[in-house]
Amino acid sequence: MKHIFSIILVFTLSVIQAQSVKSPSSALEVNFKLVNNGQPSYTVNFNGKPVVLESTLGIKLKERTALDSNFEIITSKSATFNESWKPVLGQKAIIENQYNELTIALNQKVTNVKMNIIFKVYNEGVAFRYEFPKQEKLNYFIISDEVSQFNLTEDYKAFWIPGDFDSNEYVYNETKLSSIDNTKLNLNNGIGVKSIPGKYTVQAPLMMKSASGLYVNIFEAAVVNYPVMHLNVDGVNFKLSSQLVPNAIGDKAYLQAPCVSPWRTIMISNDARDIVGSSMILNLNEPCKLDDVSYIKPMKYVGIWWEMHVGLSTWDYAGSQNAQNISSKELLPSGKHGATTANTKRYIDFAAKNGFDGVLVEGWNVGWEDWVGNWKEEVFDFTTPYPDFNLAEVTAYAKEKNVKMIMHHETSGSVANYERHLDRAFDLMKKYDYPAVKSGYVGKIIPRGEFHDGQTMVNHFNFVARRAADYKLMINSHESSRPTGYSRTYPNYIAAEAARGNEFNAWSNGNPPSHETILPFTRQLGGPMDYTPGIFEIKMSYYDKNKTEQVHTTLAKQLALYVTMYSPLQMAADLPESYEKRMDAFQFIKDVALDWDDTKILEAEPGDYLTIARKTKGKQTWFLGAITDENARKTEITLDFLNKGQKYKAIIYEDAKDADWKNNPMAYKIRIVEVTNKSKLNLVMAPGGGTAISFEPIK
Amino acid sequence: MKHIFSIILVFTLSVIQAQSVKSPSSALEVNFKLVNNGQPSYTVNFNGKPVVLESTLGIKLKERTALDSNFEIITSKSATFNESWKPVLGQKAIIENQYNELTIALNQKVTNVKMNIIFKVYNEGVAFRYEFPKQEKLNYFIISDEVSQFNLTEDYKAFWIPGDFDSNEYVYNETKLSSIDNTKLNLNNGIGVKSIPGKYTVQAPLMMKSASGLYVNIFEAAVVNYPVMHLNVDGVNFKLSSQLVPNAIGDKAYLQAPCVSPWRTIMISNDARDIVGSSMILNLNEPCKLDDVSYIKPMKYVGIWWEMHVGLSTWDYAGSQNAQNISSKELLPSGKHGATTANTKRYIDFAAKNGFDGVLVEGWNVGWEDWVGNWKEEVFDFTTPYPDFNLAEVTAYAKEKNVKMIMHHETSGSVANYERHLDRAFDLMKKYDYPAVKSGYVGKIIPRGEFHDGQTMVNHFNFVARRAADYKLMINSHESSRPTGYSRTYPNYIAAEAARGNEFNAWSNGNPPSHETILPFTRQLGGPMDYTPGIFEIKMSYYDKNKTEQVHTTLAKQLALYVTMYSPLQMAADLPESYEKRMDAFQFIKDVALDWDDTKILEAEPGDYLTIARKTKGKQTWFLGAITDENARKTEITLDFLNKGQKYKAIIYEDAKDADWKNNPMAYKIRIVEVTNKSKLNLVMAPGGGTAISFEPIK
Repeated sequence: MKHIFSIILVFTLSVIQAQSVKSPSSALEVNFKLVNNGQPSYTVNFNGKPVVLESTLGIKLKERTALDSNFEIITSKSATFNESWKPVLGQKAIIENQYNELTIALNQKVTNVKMNIIFKVYNEGVAFRYEFPKQEKLNYFIISDEVSQFNLTEDYKAFWIPGDFDSNEYVYNETKLSSIDNTKLNLNNGIGVKSIPGKYTVQAPLMMKSASGLYVNIFEAAVVNYPVMHLNVDGVNFKLSSQLVPNAIGDKAYLQAPCVSPWRTIMISNDARDIVGSSMILNLNEPCKLDDVSYIKPMKYVGIWWEMHVGLSTWDYAGSQNAQNISSKELLPSGKHGATTANTKRYIDFAAKNGFDGVLVEGWNVGWEDWVGNWKEEVFDFTTPYPDFNLAEVTAYAKEKNVKMIMHHETSGSVANYERHLDRAFDLMKKYDYPAVKSGYVGKIIPRGEFHDGQTMVNHFNFVARRAADYKLMINSHESSRPTGYSRTYPNYIAAEAARGNEFNAWSNGNPPSHETILPFTRQLGGPMDYTPGIFEIKMSYYDKNKTEQVHTTLAKQLALYVTMYSPLQMAADLPESYEKRMDAFQFIKDVALDWDDTKILEAEPGDYLTIARKTKGKQTWFLGAITDENARKTEITLDFLNKGQKYKAIIYEDAKDADWKNNPMAYKIRIVEVTNKSKLNLVMAPGGGTAISFEPIK
Repeated sequence: MKHIFSIILVFTLSVIQAQSVKSPSSALEVNFKLVNNGQPSYTVNFNGKPVVLESTLGIKLKERTALDSNFEIITSKSATFNESWKPVLGQKAIIENQYNELTIALNQKVTNVKMNIIFKVYNEGVAFRYEFPKQEKLNYFIISDEVSQFNLTEDYKAFWIPGDFDSNEYVYNETKLSSIDNTKLNLNNGIGVKSIPGKYTVQAPLMMKSASGLYVNIFEAAVVNYPVMHLNVDGVNFKLSSQLVPNAIGDKAYLQAPCVSPWRTIMISNDARDIVGSSMILNLNEPCKLDDVSYIKPMKYVGIWWEMHVGLSTWDYAGSQNAQNISSKELLPSGKHGATTANTKRYIDFAAKNGFDGVLVEGWNVGWEDWVGNWKEEVFDFTTPYPDFNLAEVTAYAKEKNVKMIMHHETSGSVANYERHLDRAFDLMKKYDYPAVKSGYVGKIIPRGEFHDGQTMVNHFNFVARRAADYKLMINSHESSRPTGYSRTYPNYIAAEAARGNEFNAWSNGNPPSHETILPFTRQLGGPMDYTPGIFEIKMSYYDKNKTEQVHTTLAKQLALYVTMYSPLQMAADLPESYEKRMDAFQFIKDVALDWDDTKILEAEPGDYLTIARKTKGKQTWFLGAITDENARKTEITLDFLNKGQKYKAIIYEDAKDADWKNNPMAYKIRIVEVTNKSKLNLVMAPGGGTAISFEPIK
């Protein structure tokens, strides 16, 4: 499967000393030049107007001359690409990859070190990277800093989270660039490990909007053997610059030529839908490197998980998080352990009855009795179950019921320990026929001094995906660095969390109603997110009268998220009993597809609303999800995406009239209408609400 | 095999508030008291005279009150132990473990943190450790420093090497404590990675001798989950203090109560033989934790190794150490690769013909084309052979010849990478029936910022031994931290290098003639050393006329080292052709045993000479090794260790009359005499020379 599918490939090489390049549509234009003392720089125009002003580029090296000046241009070459490829799983059956490329080959006069800067210009954005060709004067080198500038023209409104080296699980702030200030944030937000380097550092993807309605998004693609890039913000001059995440001793990246940096991306459009719908990040990654992708399949799953979040049971068999070095054989059961054989069978029964693919079980293995917050190295061995979880019995039962078990590997951030046990852990998965694993990285990283977003950890996350591919296993990483399209190359890296997921609603200040309207413009550009939607019992007071926490959406919006939050791995996160009480609404979760032939972004405004329609892979059914933020919303949707001449039964799951995310979140109604591609539908959403629709062809 | 063997066990518990404890012989006495503001301190007397003056003890913690003052004594308890145990392999069949113990239980008044200090006093030395019992006030903690003092009474002569955090491969310096100064050393010594923290830091074991002839040795035992301890020297006041090796961010140790520090040891005797012959370091370690030790067997081996050191062949298939990221499939053979199938068969033939157990092959696997000096993470995968090394063919051939292959894992210091591949590497060894592996750690450590001697690496070395035990494999680590007796607990950790081995003689200023008379007083106290003796072709000019390097001993001394340098894993390091030219001398290497019923230290003076006799395990044969430093030496040895009434054929391998390590090192002679336990033998050793004797009972 190394070569997926190619419809058209046009390759034009121009040896003219061009130093500018336009998008295929010509709307975007990049100009490169050397400024000052041979310093690389670029500008970006959109429809003839500047969006990125002169911005310099450079790489600082440890104990060597910085690659940021004294350059001369050796050659500059341009080329045109137009190809298509088929993702193994995706939002579309075929992805277009069309761009114009400009390669500037540079020589640093004082050192004779060669460095190339490559631009790719798509219709929806610009990408550039540094390339270090094989050469005599540069073999091994250490990057002490990257100085890539993104100098904007005005004080954009930004959707930002702090540039934390260890966590991306933040609520988005919506302010002007000039008002960004990490010290003004409420950090009592449920995040365990925080490493915020400064007042004005934010994370990419940084979604922005100008006063005139221009959408700009700065991100990166193909972060491989390189740290994550955060962004330093000069809010006075609207200048952004790269902030690479350091390692334990302050170095940023260890490289050997020939090699490349990740792509730095600047998406630009007058239409927010172009950004949500972009495949640019995926396109900038290498094609699939797996020969066999037959085992990579979408999965809808339930699991022993939310019941721990709401306090009904515990991950820990012994009910204590402070076992103080006692042997796991001495643990005394608390009676509250969630991951028991009996409880797992209950979930398997529920999954089988409702046509789910898988069951996740967290807390099945020894270690949870003393696992977090202490930088402990040897926490889990990933192979030893608690005494009340019978692996053989559970997996035999699942097999009998035609349900797959999903493995869980919490590492507690002790990556050194995880890597030591990885082969054994994967062997166990194969022995018991687990097709996928959810991994977790809650806690300070070991090797100590490393951050979740440094080169070491980026390499770890990518390594686990590659190693899992050896075993034909799928990976879903939580608390990892955020994806940048590596799932194109290793599609068995099926999903990741890597942002503030639904779980925060159970025990923290949660995720505000706008949260899910922003993620598709930020986190989700890099790949599928395991957001774990589908919470029906919205208020935690249901479980404990003293609790005030709640999910910040209506129930109907939880359904809509299955369409708006793309992932081929989707959890129905709530308890079986929550679904059994509302089987009519649960029907949507049972029906909704996970893999798609086509995706239509119908409406999009970051922080406000999003409406997406998708066609099931290989079938004629469509699904639509529409969500809004804290404001109620009415909209009329034209169904022209449906097949011409075909009648559909549309089942509409929507907020009841009096619904409201805060005061009446669980009020929904379901109506069924017959529609064609000429129909229009009025969608009415409550504050924090949403609408989910399935379209089934009528035969 | 968890419980080995116990002849006598006497346990006496005294609840008297004793704060002093004596050795079983009463010659040594330790006194404990709290001084100043509740600061723990101790003194040591030998035969009533002070050897260690008042020395304070304490542990500094990160972000917590230091555990170095404000203590009160809760209880102090003394006890007497006398037991014996049988090592799996060893210098003696039965090891006596006899000591008196004093446990001081302390409470820190201001914090209520409990800490115990435990002393064990043996006839030949004192040991103490810190113990952190399970308690409410101390669970996880980070040691930022240990402040254990060893305040001596005078300006001892010391045999010292610099307190390098990354290497112990130094030549010993022999100066007064007051003259220790790392900045005055010649560091052009063949050592690749050096991290010397300061002018006055030296390594333990530190062997010393007073003007009056008192021998004092400071070391440690049972370094488990703790960094290596070096020693800071105050040469003006003759005060030594602990210097723990830091991690990447400056912390020393991450611990969780209940736990203990390693033992700090002070051996003291008027007779240097008591120190060389001591089993104290082994005794201070935990008993064997392996159930099955059947696979732990001594091995005498040859290998494809010295031919690379002398420049006849290369580890690298491609003959270049700078392949710059090219795929291993693109490598072009240089024709100089040592680890070929054909060459390996030649060594197997030689091993089989001469009764050797094993053949080591270095350079068999992909990675050597670009492996060292660049802090490269992914160097070796430990499973992919070069195209000219056929694993299946080689191992089948070895099996046919009844020879075992010894695996080689050079890590290039990239421990993160090694741990990731360890299970696969061991699986390969089992598949091809390799019983043992020599591992190497040449280069700066990855995780980057860690040192060879930090807690992370100590844990790594111990982890590899434990993981190897899962596979029933033996480990021989090179460039590791030096052993501190862990081979008692995991006897499959059969040997280590961890000091300046014979190899330095091939390509550096080498090891002076005194070197091998010091190692048994230092490095070898902690466990067997894979020194790789047996070089017959002493001068490198034999291989290349321009070379001036040479082994700094006579040939006869190379033979004697098989007895004086204890190891159950012994290499005959020279080339088969070097032995084939001198089969008469080679006979000693063929004959000499590797595992012993008994060991007699006949003569010992650090830096000058050493004479040891050992009885073969389970047989009546004895072997004797005598070595001298740069000075010629004559000595008369009484053979009263031999069995009474038994006649022996003694084959004496000795320096020829005109032999001299520098000018005539390869001149040896062999004579045979008949002896009994009443005989005396005159040994005559050349400068840098030695004598090796085998005693075969005459039937």
